[in-house]
Amino acid sequence: MVSKVLITGGAGYIGSHAVVELLANGYECVVVDNLSNSSFESLARVQVLAKRYVPFYQVDLVDWATLAKVFEEHSDIESVIHFAGLKAVGESAQIPLEYYHNNVGGTVVLLQLMQRYRVKNLVFSSSATVYGDYTRYPGMIQVPETCPLQPSNPYGHTKFTIENILRDVAASGSWKFAILRYFNPIGAHPSGLIGEDPLGIPNNLLPYMAQVAVGRRNKLSVFGNDYNTRDGTPIRDYIHVVDLAKGHVAALNYLQMRSKNLCEAWNLGSGMGSTVLEMYEAFAKACGNEISRDVVGRRSGDVPLLVAKPTKAELELNWKTELDIKEACEDLWRWVTKNPFGYSQHGVISRKVSDDDYENRLVTLGYGSRFQLVISNKGASIVDLLVDGQSVVLGPGDPGDYSGVTIGRYANRIAGGKYDLNGKRYQLVTNENGNTNHSDGNCYSGKHFLGPLVKTPSKGLFIAEYFLLDKQSTGFQSDLQVGVIYTLDIQTKALDIQYKGVLSRGQATPINLTNHTYFNLNKVNAATVQGTEIRLATNKVVDLDGTLHRLSVSTFDAKEEKSTVLNTEGPCYDHCFIVADHTSLDSTKDKLRSILRASHPESHISLEVLTTEPSFQFYTGDKLTGFLPRSGFAVEPARYVNAINNSRWKETVTLSGKSAYGSRIIYRFT
Amino acid sequence: MVSKVLITGGAGYIGSHAVVELLANGYECVVVDNLSNSSFESLARVQVLAKRYVPFYQVDLVDWATLAKVFEEHSDIESVIHFAGLKAVGESAQIPLEYYHNNVGGTVVLLQLMQRYRVKNLVFSSSATVYGDYTRYPGMIQVPETCPLQPSNPYGHTKFTIENILRDVAASGSWKFAILRYFNPIGAHPSGLIGEDPLGIPNNLLPYMAQVAVGRRNKLSVFGNDYNTRDGTPIRDYIHVVDLAKGHVAALNYLQMRSKNLCEAWNLGSGMGSTVLEMYEAFAKACGNEISRDVVGRRSGDVPLLVAKPTKAELELNWKTELDIKEACEDLWRWVTKNPFGYSQHGVISRKVSDDDYENRLVTLGYGSRFQLVISNKGASIVDLLVDGQSVVLGPGDPGDYSGVTIGRYANRIAGGKYDLNGKRYQLVTNENGNTNHSDGNCYSGKHFLGPLVKTPSKGLFIAEYFLLDKQSTGFQSDLQVGVIYTLDIQTKALDIQYKGVLSRGQATPINLTNHTYFNLNKVNAATVQGTEIRLATNKVVDLDGTLHRLSVSTFDAKEEKSTVLNTEGPCYDHCFIVADHTSLDSTKDKLRSILRASHPESHISLEVLTTEPSFQFYTGDKLTGFLPRSGFAVEPARYVNAINNSRWKETVTLSGKSAYGSRIIYRFT
Repeated sequence: MVSKVLITGGAGYIGSHAVVELLANGYECVVVDNLSNSSFESLARVQVLAKRYVPFYQVDLVDWATLAKVFEEHSDIESVIHFAGLKAVGESAQIPLEYYHNNVGGTVVLLQLMQRYRVKNLVFSSSATVYGDYTRYPGMIQVPETCPLQPSNPYGHTKFTIENILRDVAASGSWKFAILRYFNPIGAHPSGLIGEDPLGIPNNLLPYMAQVAVGRRNKLSVFGNDYNTRDGTPIRDYIHVVDLAKGHVAALNYLQMRSKNLCEAWNLGSGMGSTVLEMYEAFAKACGNEISRDVVGRRSGDVPLLVAKPTKAELELNWKTELDIKEACEDLWRWVTKNPFGYSQHGVISRKVSDDDYENRLVTLGYGSRFQLVISNKGASIVDLLVDGQSVVLGPGDPGDYSGVTIGRYANRIAGGKYDLNGKRYQLVTNENGNTNHSDGNCYSGKHFLGPLVKTPSKGLFIAEYFLLDKQSTGFQSDLQVGVIYTLDIQTKALDIQYKGVLSRGQATPINLTNHTYFNLNKVNAATVQGTEIRLATNKVVDLDGTLHRLSVSTFDAKEEKSTVLNTEGPCYDHCFIVADHTSLDSTKDKLRSILRASHPESHISLEVLTTEPSFQFYTGDKLTGFLPRSGFAVEPARYVNAINNSRWKETVTLSGKSAYGSRIIYRFT
Repeated sequence: MVSKVLITGGAGYIGSHAVVELLANGYECVVVDNLSNSSFESLARVQVLAKRYVPFYQVDLVDWATLAKVFEEHSDIESVIHFAGLKAVGESAQIPLEYYHNNVGGTVVLLQLMQRYRVKNLVFSSSATVYGDYTRYPGMIQVPETCPLQPSNPYGHTKFTIENILRDVAASGSWKFAILRYFNPIGAHPSGLIGEDPLGIPNNLLPYMAQVAVGRRNKLSVFGNDYNTRDGTPIRDYIHVVDLAKGHVAALNYLQMRSKNLCEAWNLGSGMGSTVLEMYEAFAKACGNEISRDVVGRRSGDVPLLVAKPTKAELELNWKTELDIKEACEDLWRWVTKNPFGYSQHGVISRKVSDDDYENRLVTLGYGSRFQLVISNKGASIVDLLVDGQSVVLGPGDPGDYSGVTIGRYANRIAGGKYDLNGKRYQLVTNENGNTNHSDGNCYSGKHFLGPLVKTPSKGLFIAEYFLLDKQSTGFQSDLQVGVIYTLDIQTKALDIQYKGVLSRGQATPINLTNHTYFNLNKVNAATVQGTEIRLATNKVVDLDGTLHRLSVSTFDAKEEKSTVLNTEGPCYDHCFIVADHTSLDSTKDKLRSILRASHPESHISLEVLTTEPSFQFYTGDKLTGFLPRSGFAVEPARYVNAINNSRWKETVTLSGKSAYGSRIIYRFT
């Protein structure tokens, strides 16, 4: 039985790392975040990283009604991990009311809703700040949880107030509360995919140093070197964010194993103190760069020493830190070098199709350039493709048109909708011709892919990765993990699409993936493909029954003088053209072949399609419903039509065991 | 320049007493209260007591939008006194979230709105509870404000949290905050009109004892007599609520005189401690009753000693207690004997005509009895009168019908709308006949009276007192204070109306007050007065020009065999009948004369009208617009028609100097 956890502030620095660890430990996660100081991008990446869907709601905790809807929709939430809150000490002194309103007010609403929906477990993000300057107590080098609390700033007061609320509430009824007092979280996930992305000027030492190291900031300010410490700079207990995230899993496990009421606080720290200068040295070593620094005056509210006595968490939660500051600095450096602007990426923009629909975002790659791709989670589809500012694809259409979408689990037709696999016969829903096309009602066009995970490895190059866990259905056995990777190369105006498939459960499945974009190379001037000049690599086609024959169409072959010109009446094609006799199950390492060249004399835009696939369906779009007939033509490189029912080709569309399916398509424009 | 103060929780125990003191000290008050643990009745009484209008809004502080409207409507609010909050220590341990939500959440919203509307002065109701058990600090018998705070229950935590919020907010900008830490408020206003009215079982000693004394509770429980005190019971610093209320005025004066930012706390206490048993003795003496008591176990959260060091308030606010516990006990006893069920009164119900319209409440006197009166603030009018369950009056009608309302400042006609006073001529707006009737557009029918202040001095007797400050207008010079007092005697089925008028500003004014109820003694069966039998005390009338003559109408005189019977066609009267040649300006001590006897053979209801007035207008309602013609007849005892322009009678309608106007009317039913 999977336990469902609501994570407030789950898109933030610590929250996103906690989601990763919770998923890895078998918890199901629902995230709410007001995104006031975080980005949904973190969660999009976490989902791809974990290959798991995480429902997300942009909710402000003080908004009772909206938060109530989340509890209503997820009536099986068992626990809450409460990260949400404003967290800048300095800012809290400027706008204390916002801090009380958000932190205290938000927590009270959350607890009221937990009470209403009978959710009794809560892990709360407190802070070592609640101790204040505990050096007033003699003999305390490592601060124990029993130390009297006396925070010295409004941020600390809000955490302290919430701790009091939790104690009072726990005493009033049946609740289990874990209060985690964080020391100084640093570092990033070792994948380099998620990390701290402070809005504006970073408040904390490490993010600030990192921004100096990548050139975003000029110089590090060291706030005071006249403290009574070994080198005069304040000592803090720095803890790797991944360790911290694991502490939440430990606390949640602890709560779940206890049957009695409880409200306990635990320090999450290493027990080891580092000075500012020591951290400076460690980070400088990790990044290998010079980091300018200046010693300036003390910052108000800073205490000289804040190091955890970590034994209570070790004894009771069975948790202790496993990573050191060296690893934290290396992971941080990986994160900032891969993401110098955090979750913002030059040339990438993301927008929602409708409010709160985070499962259906439109992401633009190459924004502001001469070659732009707009993709959507729904069907991992191509929503738009702009060549020198001109749109050359139809974009979303009627579901039956498959316009722009990824086609799977099985592209193209299956004769009679039947196939045999491992001695069992499968029957799919069939269309009016008695066959199944594009997996019929179960096509990827209607599925929401996770991601995209966008990388910009070099200037002008964008890689966007979608992920789908395609669960077994009546027509298809076995669970399938599907990857769709778009690589946009601005300089060569090439869009490279890779498909990947591996089994995640079950024995075998038919597989055949492609993209179903309709192209119109003169869309800006004409609603149809009228006048488009086409040449194909071959005129050889295979029918559904395996018959091979040739069609009348211009090929690359020099013998034809003219290209085939598409007009509104004809010629009409909807055929599987054959360019190779053989293919690997994973064709991505196979030879790339040019299969189609199209151009339009009016727009002067040319398209070349290349693929590692042995065949391609070429369709002149004669039966479109959401658009005019022949509004665009489709080129769908894939395995041979009906290959699953053809003994010679069956193995090229049958994924089993640990093997991998792969294919590659490139659209190149000039 | 009058300073306007917003009082949150101003309908509560301390809040209502503070409003009295603020008004007495020249502050203008606006009250908000969610009435969750208080009654608007307190404020209705305060307004009559202070003879001042206090705008009221039923608002929950956590409701940002509704509270914002109050600030919007009263953009001249300069300060806030913040009483609102839940306050039961025991309950706070049961439902801590409600306490945090209401007390802390409400305060944060209030502060956010103060910030938005640039209101910078706040006096906050804190509590000595924030000190917790300060006997942990050696040598502190009287606790000073500098004592570390460590409250021991959720209620105390909310007060402590709010104090922290105020300190943080004050440090962030330009604010002036006075934190008043109350010790144990007791007693009531010496008028006996307002006091503590706890919902359910009282949490505090004195209200509980009081309820035992009046027989509402069985026995007093003394929680523990094994404390380390002189008689074993806990010691508290009891402070008269009127002293406490004055402390708020002192704090507000202090804030207004200071120019700098400040956030300071002051104890409001006497510095004297009394044990539970000492208070028991004091109260028993004040009430002269035996009060049963039982010693039971300690109550959790109670500390042994809580006595203020009061010197800071004395030095800085120039405030100290002036009343002792003897006076507090006497005032409390006066309050509870006058109001054994607090603001609830048997046989009295109050409802609003529309939401949030506290200026227009319908109050029923004698509810559940055979003689019920429904009155309204608007025009201090008679909305309904039920004799044996049958309505005998028309109730509210069109403005021009004056149905049920109090008529003033000048009832009946003024010839030509002109009069001379102190050598000056005044001209009123006139009607189509060239005269002024019932003060024309300025009649009391459209004015909202304060109150009613309802008293139930003995079983079956209800007294409801309305008050109006009638300000001078073009037609009438001088400000006038008007009282309308309804006395309902259930046993004799008599409704006694008294009018009182005194000048509050200016030299002299014409005055002539009456009530304009239309009677229909058979309303349940007939829409008109058809069949009503009438006899008058006289048939002598005076015309507008002073001419005396006689009309044909049955009189009490035995000579006429039959009463005049009213039918839908006739006879028609709208005349001023004369029953006396002379009257005092205040006629209330004059002889009561029976002036009209009416009955209906079908309903068997008889009405006798008596008055101290020398004349009465009798009108058969022939020109009603909101009702059928002759739906009811009116009897309006008052001074002679046009007396202000008649040298013989002028002095009977001229109020000047310190003299008082008065008159009396009785409707008696059988």
